[in-house]
Amino acid sequence: MTIEPIRPRSRRRHVLITGGLGFIGTHVADAFLAAGHAVTLVDSMVQAVTDGSWYRGMPEVAIHTISIEDYLEQGADLAAFDLVIHAASHVGPASILKYTGRLGFEIVNATHRVIEACLEAGRPLVVFSSAEVYGRSGRLAESDDLIVPVPYSTRVEYAIGKALTEAMTLNSRHRGLKGLVIRPFNVTGSRQSKAGGFVMPTFVQQALSGQPITVFAGGRQTRAFLAATDLARFLVEHLDAALASGHGIVNLGNPDNAVSVLELAHRIKRLAGSTSPIVHVDGKAIHGELYEEAASVDKLPVLDAAVAAGWTPRVGLDELIQQTIAFYRSHRDFCADEAA
Amino acid sequence: MTIEPIRPRSRRRHVLITGGLGFIGTHVADAFLAAGHAVTLVDSMVQAVTDGSWYRGMPEVAIHTISIEDYLEQGADLAAFDLVIHAASHVGPASILKYTGRLGFEIVNATHRVIEACLEAGRPLVVFSSAEVYGRSGRLAESDDLIVPVPYSTRVEYAIGKALTEAMTLNSRHRGLKGLVIRPFNVTGSRQSKAGGFVMPTFVQQALSGQPITVFAGGRQTRAFLAATDLARFLVEHLDAALASGHGIVNLGNPDNAVSVLELAHRIKRLAGSTSPIVHVDGKAIHGELYEEAASVDKLPVLDAAVAAGWTPRVGLDELIQQTIAFYRSHRDFCADEAA
Repeated sequence: MTIEPIRPRSRRRHVLITGGLGFIGTHVADAFLAAGHAVTLVDSMVQAVTDGSWYRGMPEVAIHTISIEDYLEQGADLAAFDLVIHAASHVGPASILKYTGRLGFEIVNATHRVIEACLEAGRPLVVFSSAEVYGRSGRLAESDDLIVPVPYSTRVEYAIGKALTEAMTLNSRHRGLKGLVIRPFNVTGSRQSKAGGFVMPTFVQQALSGQPITVFAGGRQTRAFLAATDLARFLVEHLDAALASGHGIVNLGNPDNAVSVLELAHRIKRLAGSTSPIVHVDGKAIHGELYEEAASVDKLPVLDAAVAAGWTPRVGLDELIQQTIAFYRSHRDFCADEAA
Repeated sequence: MTIEPIRPRSRRRHVLITGGLGFIGTHVADAFLAAGHAVTLVDSMVQAVTDGSWYRGMPEVAIHTISIEDYLEQGADLAAFDLVIHAASHVGPASILKYTGRLGFEIVNATHRVIEACLEAGRPLVVFSSAEVYGRSGRLAESDDLIVPVPYSTRVEYAIGKALTEAMTLNSRHRGLKGLVIRPFNVTGSRQSKAGGFVMPTFVQQALSGQPITVFAGGRQTRAFLAATDLARFLVEHLDAALASGHGIVNLGNPDNAVSVLELAHRIKRLAGSTSPIVHVDGKAIHGELYEEAASVDKLPVLDAAVAAGWTPRVGLDELIQQTIAFYRSHRDFCADEAA
């Protein structure tokens, strides 16, 4: 006699994920699917990490390869969904550079359209912001003021754009929106594109291919990496508690995984059994004059709001590195870029 | 024998002013007209202070009562102008409240469209930001970091939106834009609408009508008022120097005019010869729960960038009050509001 797995079908949800074929989007989608929910993934394909073929033949998945602006423009009714997760965004310290001067508008415009559609349909909305909004180092709590450093770089334009989407989301609660803002701190894992300028996939792929591991700005800058799977679990299991808590903004990160970038290079090299040399280079030589490494910024999240919703991160740094190595071992040529 | 006034006709400019029928816009237009230039005024009429009849019969003035977004959408070519001044914006601590949650988008969207059109036409652009972006008190210089206080109010959403338009404008210089950002500090004068929640026209009109002069939040908050005519003179006479200086952002204000709001009430009452009582009230009782008085914020501008371009403010506080009183004496019923 076999026992059917118990799935709470009556509480099965249909979740719309914008940027659903991106790095964050696919991790979130996978987590909802694993929990027995259905997802609709809308993605402009500008920074997608898959063409959607991974989900072929899965009846719980619908895919629209179109920007969320156009998806809504064509009359999509969000009342068909139980929850909307807005993860679509230009992202990555290198990827954003080509949008300088219009990056802020594009981030704000897409989020505005999603907010208005959720208001119209009466559906709850989760908006992905970024720890970039804090604008400084330290143990950072959601109740802290933000700092906008001047002069403005493209990276700062990104941060201000994200801060504005936060204000729009939270102020729209006065208009009836059930909205929550997530501020992720250094999310990483499988499928993250090195084309974006992210350090983990860059180092892992360099280590696996025997190429030099390229450390920018001396490597003393600290990063505390959060597994994308930990982030996705928050949305599937703890979102209701977070929405009910009244916290408008929730930090998600893993301070236990704090590591200097130079130490990260050594650790990846060791765990990958790599012979790559570790070299110091100028990020601007790789990504151009507009590139800005947050060299002096060390951010650690205060997690009180997330913990109050029952969540704690689980994946430690070595495990996260090993998962990422395993992914790139089996996807040697994986480099999602603008033409993904 | 009469001597014709010398006007540098060969350097006559045609200036496009967005929000050109608003408080700032009309002062800027008047200053350009007085200097022999031509102006095209585009205004959505949402916060206009005139229907344009003041300019009837003036061949140097063209008026389009349409939003700048629609004006551009209809194919306007900015190459017809020598200079674009983007003054259109929701403004005023009370006026902005009804836009909470979409205010940031509307500010950013309009500015984005103007930036793109100026880039396409190869025309210089001046964008009006606000001293609100500083987010704190003190002697404030353009090289200072900005602070975004949390939790977000509508007023903060306005400030972030303005900061994002600054970053977009200045970062677009990497794309070839000749752009300058103005940060005005407490501009006031004739035609400013009390409907926006501005203190000077409110107190002056209350004083002239014998109604109670309504002081919010105790009245100890300091404001340093700049005459709109001083601001307009910067644009006509000092803009070329400012654009050439490489300063991306220029504070415009008048620290010599610093005064507490309570003292302002007394001074207006005296200069108007008014019998109005001065009363303390809660701003929220007048403008609603979302209203936020910047009670603890005292901003004074550092003027180095403007002074380096040859500008200093001229109109002292009493003169400014008297000019405002004179205007409202001859325009008793003047209250431009949303339906102006």
